[in-house]
Amino acid sequence: VTSALHQHVRRTILRHRLWPAGARVVVALSGGSDSVALTLLLRDLAEHGAFSIAALAHLNHRLRASADRDEAFCRSFADSIDLPIVVGSAEVLVEAQTLGISLEDAARRVRYRFLEDVCEKTGADRIAVGHTEDDQAETFLLKLIRGAGATGLGGVYPRRGRVVRPLLDVSRASLRRFLKDRRQPWVEDDTNHDLDNPRNRIRHVVLAELERATGGPARPALARAAGLIREDGQWLDQVSDQRFQALAADTQNGLEFEVDALLAEPAPISRRLVLRALRSRSGGREVGFEHVEAVIGLLSGSPAGLDLPGCRVELRRRKLVLIQKVDPK
Amino acid sequence: VTSALHQHVRRTILRHRLWPAGARVVVALSGGSDSVALTLLLRDLAEHGAFSIAALAHLNHRLRASADRDEAFCRSFADSIDLPIVVGSAEVLVEAQTLGISLEDAARRVRYRFLEDVCEKTGADRIAVGHTEDDQAETFLLKLIRGAGATGLGGVYPRRGRVVRPLLDVSRASLRRFLKDRRQPWVEDDTNHDLDNPRNRIRHVVLAELERATGGPARPALARAAGLIREDGQWLDQVSDQRFQALAADTQNGLEFEVDALLAEPAPISRRLVLRALRSRSGGREVGFEHVEAVIGLLSGSPAGLDLPGCRVELRRRKLVLIQKVDPK
Repeated sequence: VTSALHQHVRRTILRHRLWPAGARVVVALSGGSDSVALTLLLRDLAEHGAFSIAALAHLNHRLRASADRDEAFCRSFADSIDLPIVVGSAEVLVEAQTLGISLEDAARRVRYRFLEDVCEKTGADRIAVGHTEDDQAETFLLKLIRGAGATGLGGVYPRRGRVVRPLLDVSRASLRRFLKDRRQPWVEDDTNHDLDNPRNRIRHVVLAELERATGGPARPALARAAGLIREDGQWLDQVSDQRFQALAADTQNGLEFEVDALLAEPAPISRRLVLRALRSRSGGREVGFEHVEAVIGLLSGSPAGLDLPGCRVELRRRKLVLIQKVDPK
Repeated sequence: VTSALHQHVRRTILRHRLWPAGARVVVALSGGSDSVALTLLLRDLAEHGAFSIAALAHLNHRLRASADRDEAFCRSFADSIDLPIVVGSAEVLVEAQTLGISLEDAARRVRYRFLEDVCEKTGADRIAVGHTEDDQAETFLLKLIRGAGATGLGGVYPRRGRVVRPLLDVSRASLRRFLKDRRQPWVEDDTNHDLDNPRNRIRHVVLAELERATGGPARPALARAAGLIREDGQWLDQVSDQRFQALAADTQNGLEFEVDALLAEPAPISRRLVLRALRSRSGGREVGFEHVEAVIGLLSGSPAGLDLPGCRVELRRRKLVLIQKVDPK
């Protein structure tokens, strides 16, 4: 029970305080290697740790022919290890069409909604999902390239709300070795090798080229950097939230800041203050790095006003004023 | 004179306060597109800006046959635009052998020593070097993969000491377009396409694959992320320096911290405090992320002591004590 892999996962659980003593955990099970290994590792650790597995949860997304095969695999796997399983069924295509979003985004929304629902119904405290160091590295690179606004760099969170990621510090390769040693099969996701998908291209091509360039493993270093950057950013966000309470005045003119007070803050804080202010007045529109930069440029003088997504920003005497626009819809 | 490119460079100079009014600037000139464009752009901006060019500075590194061709090009370029040039000559190979470092590292040391020397002798205030957004993106990726210790992520600094980088927000492609428009030639670095060099592989292969994966330009997003992460890190380093003064006690036992005081700091600060403490007691040995992690693990109990590079760390009652080892050399 106490392999190096088990110890590693246990450290991640402790280090990020993924759950309190006595917690009941729902384990998200797709049938892939990561979630099958997660289930077995948590079951082993639960024997001696101060937590228990409330249920496994599998969502049949009905998007591909293999979906029913995956469901059957998960049911028989749960049976073989004597754990209860809740199986749901998704309307991913409908969700995507209704909201006008990508199938990938729709699948994620539907999946987390299902998991939260299972958590609720089983009276559990946490939902464990199988993201690994590999996912961490890939997500980090994707976020870097896509800009991710003025903050939000740093990959996947070990914990967000009730969702926890105990495998975030271990590699997919080590999980597959663990499963092979136990002669435990898993199902392969057919879409994993579709190189039209950005994440798959990063996984199979970009990371391999990065490793060829630097002559060493790229994923652990990237995942570690992602973790450090996320930790830095989270604390800076907290500090900025406190400063926001102190510096932002919600008046009948709009949201106001003293220009000198904003300029007196260090750049990482003033940048986040402006981002937060814009978000609070943009009527849900996306705010990016370039908008924050434009407002910071405004602080040093010209021009006197700016039209940004959902919001107008003006310099009035020594005050910066954000005015939310009336939505034309 | 006031092209978008000029404006962009002027904004970088102002935004990062690269020099004070009236500054005299030495421009590092290799003869490549970046440094030739840097020279012309700064010469244009100096006409209306509050600074002047003290001299151009070219180092003949004598490493390749093309070095003399590059020197001749730089002399005639300086002549054509009527600016003084100081040419130096390097002993890069000797430097590399004496210090047991790579040719690349030796070339960088020799180059900056020469530039500081020219700055001194011409009574100048700053040294402008031609790093671009492209260099920023490449350096950032290299640092990410190589780990860069517990801090130090975030690419190239706009200013460090007297060295400034006015081109850090513009792309190499835009500089080459500018030179072509002016019919201004430059010399090509023959080693630029050697794919055994990690930086060249990142430049020509990895970034191209990243762009194929995400379907958009990778360099600007990476450079921007690098700038934000560097800015965050610099301020966190400053905050940590202040906390270090408040929390570290230099006693006859060694460098001491109250464990509870360290644990009360947020993770980004405690991590930097430990890194700084280890560096101050490692006798110049390299301290990495894994050493910081080990000490932070020590804080939560076991084991009671750790042997790290050049330094032993012990938990004595509620104090963390760092003791520098006597160098066996």
